[in-house]
Amino acid sequence: MIANTPKAPYYAVIFSNVRTQIKEGYEEMAEAMVELVQKQEGYLGHESVRDGLGITISYWDSLESIKMWKQVQEHSVAQKYGREKWYSAYKTRICRVERDYGFGL
Amino acid sequence: MIANTPKAPYYAVIFSNVRTQIKEGYEEMAEAMVELVQKQEGYLGHESVRDGLGITISYWDSLESIKMWKQVQEHSVAQKYGREKWYSAYKTRICRVERDYGFGL
Repeated sequence: MIANTPKAPYYAVIFSNVRTQIKEGYEEMAEAMVELVQKQEGYLGHESVRDGLGITISYWDSLESIKMWKQVQEHSVAQKYGREKWYSAYKTRICRVERDYGFGL
Repeated sequence: MIANTPKAPYYAVIFSNVRTQIKEGYEEMAEAMVELVQKQEGYLGHESVRDGLGITISYWDSLESIKMWKQVQEHSVAQKYGREKWYSAYKTRICRVERDYGFGL
């Protein structure tokens, strides 16, 4: 549930989004992307929640790995359909995680 | 819903959490903290979703503002109760948002 990330610094991509009413193809693509992202070089984990607003955060070892993932062919197709069909709005934020701390992990 | 943040760089605090079964006092405190955080110096917005896993992200103008918020008396009390009663696990990540882009905002 909570991603088991290594010692900071590392990187995070925060994807905050609002869905349209269009369901066609969405779940299948979301599942395919979850499977695909885990095979990417530099992927460290992800967390995803939706309740009206959706937030998916993926964690990475470097900005270079994030750039590579954005350019993966199947992911580019998913992003295109996302803008055309599945999302009415989204914001993607590329972050450097400076430090972290936790409890009960 | 999606926070209307200024041009990057700015800062984000990602709070990923799992609740206990204890409901006593939680909703009241959560509402009080949402009200309080919006009055803080340097606060830029927040996004919050729960569906089993909870993710709340607050956005800030500087690390100094984040530090000040962590030390606000009522917030310190909330954090103490959080560890003792309301959360079985959490992770807080302090991030610098390097860049962002969006659609339909």
